[in-house]
Amino acid sequence: MTGIEGFLHELCDAAEAETMPRFRVRLDIEDKNRDAGDFDPVTQADRAAETAIRKLIEARYPDHGVIGEEHAPVRPNARHTWIIDPIDGTRAFICGLPSWGTLIGLQEEGRPIAGVMAQPFTGERYLAHDGAAYLVHRGKRAALAARRTTSLADAMMMTTSPNIFPREDVEAYRRVEAACRLPRYGFDCYAYAMLAGGNIDLVVESSLKAYDIAPLIPIIEGAGGMVTTWEGASAENGGRILASANAELHRQALDLLAG
Amino acid sequence: MTGIEGFLHELCDAAEAETMPRFRVRLDIEDKNRDAGDFDPVTQADRAAETAIRKLIEARYPDHGVIGEEHAPVRPNARHTWIIDPIDGTRAFICGLPSWGTLIGLQEEGRPIAGVMAQPFTGERYLAHDGAAYLVHRGKRAALAARRTTSLADAMMMTTSPNIFPREDVEAYRRVEAACRLPRYGFDCYAYAMLAGGNIDLVVESSLKAYDIAPLIPIIEGAGGMVTTWEGASAENGGRILASANAELHRQALDLLAG
Repeated sequence: MTGIEGFLHELCDAAEAETMPRFRVRLDIEDKNRDAGDFDPVTQADRAAETAIRKLIEARYPDHGVIGEEHAPVRPNARHTWIIDPIDGTRAFICGLPSWGTLIGLQEEGRPIAGVMAQPFTGERYLAHDGAAYLVHRGKRAALAARRTTSLADAMMMTTSPNIFPREDVEAYRRVEAACRLPRYGFDCYAYAMLAGGNIDLVVESSLKAYDIAPLIPIIEGAGGMVTTWEGASAENGGRILASANAELHRQALDLLAG
Repeated sequence: MTGIEGFLHELCDAAEAETMPRFRVRLDIEDKNRDAGDFDPVTQADRAAETAIRKLIEARYPDHGVIGEEHAPVRPNARHTWIIDPIDGTRAFICGLPSWGTLIGLQEEGRPIAGVMAQPFTGERYLAHDGAAYLVHRGKRAALAARRTTSLADAMMMTTSPNIFPREDVEAYRRVEAACRLPRYGFDCYAYAMLAGGNIDLVVESSLKAYDIAPLIPIIEGAGGMVTTWEGASAENGGRILASANAELHRQALDLLAG
């Protein structure tokens, strides 16, 4: 597919025009509107951004499928299918934190082939296509390369919150956290971008939806990282997800998760 | 003191020139240098930024005291004393996360009268003097106003990590977390900036040093918020800290912390 990187930027621009004007809006001051039931900027931003993204996809690739968080699937069995999470990290968005992202991924026969994670407040776009991944930031474009850490004891680990794990997964998660050098919480999809950017080594999460992770797969893999379920299976359907900077680290973490 | 705001920006500029070139540096690739014992960008950034800040203060206010994280105190009993944490959130810094900040505060006879929290990657500067607080970002300067939430059940709460609390404080912390609408982890000093900016309602932390919190006090108070120890005493010496968007919320949280 030619021009995919330019098109990903077009999609991000359209989403940003809907999300950013609603970011850090003063809900407590706007209570009157909220009481009237017509003022929920997060939901509005989510829906409007997904609508804007879908409109551009429909115009350019009318035979592609589209699966998103906010609207019904369209042609989900098409050869090419787009997966959209207009605001991944809505709780961070509500709190004014710049760790949410707009996630847009493209799959070919179920296999992720391109994707972008855009954080409009910091102006970062982590994107991937044709097997490579890039960070576009302040007019610069740099290839992403995950870290070479090969021991969990040296690894920086992230998860959105230790509270996201269902009771039956807590023990396995804690084994990995305890084996790592440094755990950090918060940051949602931004954590996977940090892994692709070579800043951290491991992300461990649970209960992810397909649209939470599918767009990130080509970014992680394009940077040399690995991402699978805790059982080592394909990550694109979500669930319990492990992302690592490289195969050696991934193997060690999978072993610990298996117990 | 005239020109204090301009001087705070000068200090932040000098710190930024030392911190940003060392942010998101590839430690795993630079292992050779690190093994030689002369490559620790976080410590280097911390020390160099504090040195740069101290140099400007010495030149402009030679009779002022200076207390910082990285170097020995100078004239700590002076009428005016500066408190510096060149990189608050070094763990976030190491992980490439834009939630660390350069904290610089000015006290007059022990009372905080001015301060700044600068996050150079996002380009935000939260600053306060003469009883008011402002966010300077992308060339714009806006007055800060904390939220008007008056019930913990509606409150967005933050803490750097639920693991920072000593065993004897965990139960009190959990009471507050359980009473709030939404807890978020991570973000270090950025959480207090979010409170001053009207994005969240509560920050609960423990084991803070004076330089972790003193520079933030005029920012929180200048935005209309409150910050004290868990016993309701002055916050400038650190310890167990509660910051709230307003007095009503603060009273409710103090009651819960007291048990």
